[in-house]
Amino acid sequence: MRYVNGVVLKGRNELAISATCPVPDDIVETGAIIRPLIWSPCTSDAHLVQTGAESLPYLIGKALGHEMCGEIIRVGKDVHDFKVGDRVIVCSVMPIWRSLEAQDGHAFQKQDNMYGGVDYPDRGGSFVEEYYIRDADMNLALIPDGVTLEQAVMVPDMMCTAFGGVSELNPSFGDSVAVLGIGPVGLMCVRALYLHGASRIYAIGSRKICFSVASSFGATDLVDYHDTSWTDEIIEKNHGLLDGVLIAGGGNDALSNALKMTKKGGTVVNLATYFGGRNIEIDPASWGFGYADKTIKGVGCKGGRLQMMRMARLIETGRVSPEMLITHTFHGMNKVIDGLNLFLNHDRSLIKPVIYND
Amino acid sequence: MRYVNGVVLKGRNELAISATCPVPDDIVETGAIIRPLIWSPCTSDAHLVQTGAESLPYLIGKALGHEMCGEIIRVGKDVHDFKVGDRVIVCSVMPIWRSLEAQDGHAFQKQDNMYGGVDYPDRGGSFVEEYYIRDADMNLALIPDGVTLEQAVMVPDMMCTAFGGVSELNPSFGDSVAVLGIGPVGLMCVRALYLHGASRIYAIGSRKICFSVASSFGATDLVDYHDTSWTDEIIEKNHGLLDGVLIAGGGNDALSNALKMTKKGGTVVNLATYFGGRNIEIDPASWGFGYADKTIKGVGCKGGRLQMMRMARLIETGRVSPEMLITHTFHGMNKVIDGLNLFLNHDRSLIKPVIYND
Amino acid sequence: MRYVNGVVLKGRNELAISATCPVPDDIVETGAIIRPLIWSPCTSDAHLVQTGAESLPYLIGKALGHEMCGEIIRVGKDVHDFKVGDRVIVCSVMPIWRSLEAQDGHAFQKQDNMYGGVDYPDRGGSFVEEYYIRDADMNLALIPDGVTLEQAVMVPDMMCTAFGGVSELNPSFGDSVAVLGIGPVGLMCVRALYLHGASRIYAIGSRKICFSVASSFGATDLVDYHDTSWTDEIIEKNHGLLDGVLIAGGGNDALSNALKMTKKGGTVVNLATYFGGRNIEIDPASWGFGYADKTIKGVGCKGGRLQMMRMARLIETGRVSPEMLITHTFHGMNKVIDGLNLFLNHDRSLIKPVIYND
Amino acid sequence: MRYVNGVVLKGRNELAISATCPVPDDIVETGAIIRPLIWSPCTSDAHLVQTGAESLPYLIGKALGHEMCGEIIRVGKDVHDFKVGDRVIVCSVMPIWRSLEAQDGHAFQKQDNMYGGVDYPDRGGSFVEEYYIRDADMNLALIPDGVTLEQAVMVPDMMCTAFGGVSELNPSFGDSVAVLGIGPVGLMCVRALYLHGASRIYAIGSRKICFSVASSFGATDLVDYHDTSWTDEIIEKNHGLLDGVLIAGGGNDALSNALKMTKKGGTVVNLATYFGGRNIEIDPASWGFGYADKTIKGVGCKGGRLQMMRMARLIETGRVSPEMLITHTFHGMNKVIDGLNLFLNHDRSLIKPVIYND
Repeated sequence: MRYVNGVVLKGRNELAISATCPVPDDIVETGAIIRPLIWSPCTSDAHLVQTGAESLPYLIGKALGHEMCGEIIRVGKDVHDFKVGDRVIVCSVMPIWRSLEAQDGHAFQKQDNMYGGVDYPDRGGSFVEEYYIRDADMNLALIPDGVTLEQAVMVPDMMCTAFGGVSELNPSFGDSVAVLGIGPVGLMCVRALYLHGASRIYAIGSRKICFSVASSFGATDLVDYHDTSWTDEIIEKNHGLLDGVLIAGGGNDALSNALKMTKKGGTVVNLATYFGGRNIEIDPASWGFGYADKTIKGVGCKGGRLQMMRMARLIETGRVSPEMLITHTFHGMNKVIDGLNLFLNHDRSLIKPVIYND
Repeated sequence: MRYVNGVVLKGRNELAISATCPVPDDIVETGAIIRPLIWSPCTSDAHLVQTGAESLPYLIGKALGHEMCGEIIRVGKDVHDFKVGDRVIVCSVMPIWRSLEAQDGHAFQKQDNMYGGVDYPDRGGSFVEEYYIRDADMNLALIPDGVTLEQAVMVPDMMCTAFGGVSELNPSFGDSVAVLGIGPVGLMCVRALYLHGASRIYAIGSRKICFSVASSFGATDLVDYHDTSWTDEIIEKNHGLLDGVLIAGGGNDALSNALKMTKKGGTVVNLATYFGGRNIEIDPASWGFGYADKTIKGVGCKGGRLQMMRMARLIETGRVSPEMLITHTFHGMNKVIDGLNLFLNHDRSLIKPVIYND
Repeated sequence: MRYVNGVVLKGRNELAISATCPVPDDIVETGAIIRPLIWSPCTSDAHLVQTGAESLPYLIGKALGHEMCGEIIRVGKDVHDFKVGDRVIVCSVMPIWRSLEAQDGHAFQKQDNMYGGVDYPDRGGSFVEEYYIRDADMNLALIPDGVTLEQAVMVPDMMCTAFGGVSELNPSFGDSVAVLGIGPVGLMCVRALYLHGASRIYAIGSRKICFSVASSFGATDLVDYHDTSWTDEIIEKNHGLLDGVLIAGGGNDALSNALKMTKKGGTVVNLATYFGGRNIEIDPASWGFGYADKTIKGVGCKGGRLQMMRMARLIETGRVSPEMLITHTFHGMNKVIDGLNLFLNHDRSLIKPVIYND
Repeated sequence: MRYVNGVVLKGRNELAISATCPVPDDIVETGAIIRPLIWSPCTSDAHLVQTGAESLPYLIGKALGHEMCGEIIRVGKDVHDFKVGDRVIVCSVMPIWRSLEAQDGHAFQKQDNMYGGVDYPDRGGSFVEEYYIRDADMNLALIPDGVTLEQAVMVPDMMCTAFGGVSELNPSFGDSVAVLGIGPVGLMCVRALYLHGASRIYAIGSRKICFSVASSFGATDLVDYHDTSWTDEIIEKNHGLLDGVLIAGGGNDALSNALKMTKKGGTVVNLATYFGGRNIEIDPASWGFGYADKTIKGVGCKGGRLQMMRMARLIETGRVSPEMLITHTFHGMNKVIDGLNLFLNHDRSLIKPVIYND
């Protein structure tokens, strides 16, 4: 076992570059080691900086991070589809493909692991100099020619989560759909809705920069949730209830607000997480008192090589321009901490930062 | 307009036989008038006796009831598939087939009507001497030869609701599923699960008579919810989480209990109603913090002629014996009130009462 | 009954403007009469000119046509959502919403009618001065402000058929799909695929004008089927088999060609018709010898008000520019025959003609 | 490498017990070696006896067989869920769970292998003294207590194929469905239809013994295909077209016959194989000329541990009695040849033979 530098959680709101991140000398036959070329911090990383030391104490001393692209520097002897030197997208959620869950269509949802996949966060994340994964053929994807690193690093979480969520919503051509919360995942939902045939797309947020990208991605209506009657406003604009709503933010009343705007027979897809400890409350009337054929799906990131290949092809063929999410570009591992601080300081100019490893 | 006898809501907890139920002289061309042969009161009728006078004051003076079979005594000139003298099952929920909702696959879910269909409860229910419906060809079904009236009157709500709910759950062959609440709808869910290939079926209730029918219908495990740790007990018996849960009762923590027992990637179908005024609360951990691919569906009764025909064929071919639900048989309209009182008095020997109109 | 002018089939390859098209004096209460503002002839109309007199002799003396938009000039007293003066899209296939087929999710597929809906072609088509339909609320859709007549008249068949077909194919984000035959329906399939998240879209045709529109609509690869090895060429370009294929032309070996290009687990949606009398032949190897999880769907036009509203919203929000299909614009009913002749003469500059009724 | 006895293909219509079947000394870490306890020959094995020497010459010298249960005698060090001494069902089709096909929901359909999975038939089948498989945790299932070997050996192909096919047909409660061909797979389709809520089940065959089991499994109507007008007879009995048809035999016109009996909007699931070299022909009228919303699915056996566990649970809970298929019981490997000869001689008393390895 060797130890390399990484962006490590030291304690509550405490990060450091620390050479305590393990890289095994022996890798499994299906495994690979990747040298990161670009990282992107995420809201959920920032959330762990704030709360992880208490809620998940085993994270202390480990690296954070799950959005990364890099170059393969070593492969096990049973890796067939990748070789040293390949530039790859690394899956954020590490589905376990040899599992009953995978045979059941939910590869990431390992029943006995709160986080789904097993690689992360047991061993720590990918804000490291070298990153080891156990199943290269299943959880890496080549970066196609013509796709930049900045584009590619938006695939593992931003695109996989948003496009997976819209697949679960499964809108019909011409549907009217709202996205509640237009941070980077919500914005990707806007684009995914456009590419799944929605006509009216209501982007609900508050920041000008996000509204601007939402418009470029295909939103038809921009709604500020500071308006006290924003749900009624949307229903009125739409001349009736929506076909569906995606939740990518919005707090504890998000579910009731989303259900209230959704037609009988419609679907709400939740992509937000609820770690605050409080119960989630649903106003019974918003849910049609339980019998209005309204469906609620709580959806996790869809990962794996095939999903990432599909996302990469959407970039390659010009269907999506994920680089439009990137507002801040840095160089050098220590800048990852600066990137995380943008989230922690609620910088209003931020959508997504990326950090090149050079 | 003529007026006939019916079982009429007079006020809070007050019922009477009263000749104030309208039958139109002119019926629409697609309409029909049916003389009831058998009725069955339902928990939801009893609920209206207790609360309807206050929550839905327009019901005062109107007949209750939505489970009925009868004989056609008049048809409009555009009724093609039924004639005077036919013995028919009458749809409980009155879907509107000429509606955008029907074109969207949710015929009963009229967006602007809390109750879905428009015929009921505007004009009152079917505990009347003559019952008028507006679309005979779409919302009646012939009672096949060999199907008794007692069997047929279990179709419009008990079977249509339960089998519709199990269709939404859509279990895979061999799945393990629980039914929370084994009143008559829950018991029909047990049978529907058996006929949708579930292997382990956990019937959760408390009354001996219901457990007995549940076993006959295919339940493999009978669980008393008075046991304080019944959810853990089921998970242990099942050697893991369930593939799905149907809620057909169970109160305000039903959703959290159901979600807790359901695997990541599984589905909870709710067939209960939430009229108490309180918010529904979900324990975030039971829902996998929102990202465990757990789906919640709030499902209403699937009605219409085709669904009723399918149910009747299941009886005709011996797949279902719905008469096993019937614990009390009466004769004469005034006995409908006795039947309702069985619900109001929480009679522990009751599953379903029927009243012949003779 | 009055009689108005229409474009009438007289015999094999024989058309005339003839005042023999009936308009009832009494319309049903849900009915409406529409004065056409714009028509568009279709390949299938041309096909009837050539073969209908023999294969469907009852068509002789009747008007052709099923693509039309117009102005309502009369409504029955039970029409709630439209009024005289409204400009509307008229459904091409006339689903019967009060039918068991509609309750089964296939409103157009009337079991006892070769053509699906009953209004057409029993009474003749819509190349007439006044057109009567029986269910206005269910089979008309308002033309939204900002949508032109030329755009709107592409909705009832071109868009409803193509977008319905792509919904049945149901590609995943990033899929590779081919469209075999890029006449107007095939071109609309290209656009629908783009709006359903396909990445690589192979447009297979032969005419330059069609290739040009295909590119504008989102095709990534243009393939000439005169190249003898075009199926192999596509498989090679795609680095493997396709996720799905839509057939919108291509003749008797279309199915085998489509299946050959489709991956195991993939789907072929057929939008072509097979009236030649010959059996359709499938090369067993192309179908994986019957057990390769390859699905073949034979799909008809999805009509009805909701589907047309959804299509119109796609135009309104700029997702689709159907006017790009229109290569020829005429004025006056007698020019409908000129439009049909463009098809009959295989005019290589033709995609779709429209004729204004002025 | 060691060599053990097996039932080996020597040439056209030539079999022998031969000690030429390899068992590796080194097994992969996820692999296992199983000592068979019971085998069952299959029609497709018999077909290989007749034609395999010519069509698949690499099979010469290899063992046949894919239906087997046995005892684990060795496991690799990464096998977590099974141990030496476990009695297991062995998957017939050997899905590759670490594959893009598995990530796409079609684990068995390896694109570059005519037979789907790679283990079989490359190395030969399981009519051997010791059988090596490469992924024990994914492609074995424990035989539950109370399930006999005879029952269990019906799981890998008879049940997995039939229940998988009925899942693809996905009948609604109360549907009418026919099974064309009631050999052992067809009979299992009858039972699976019963357990998926079909009401009328038409079993189409010719042998008395098969009709008898079909009745026990839930068939309501027994139809002899020697009656010249058997398709019309079924349509008449059913008072209309069927909701779906499963093909488990029936020859070259099976598809047209099935489509002819299927309603518009219905589905035909094909479980038969087409190796005769002739094109499959479809009468266009039977398919509604291509636009009647009739779907054709060519479905392979669904394998893998989870599917086998689900099947085993159906036996364990008494939902299925697969031992009713077994008409002939033998002891000793050399009797496998006798079992195969029953198929080759078209023994009319045969449904399925089993051979105990003792």
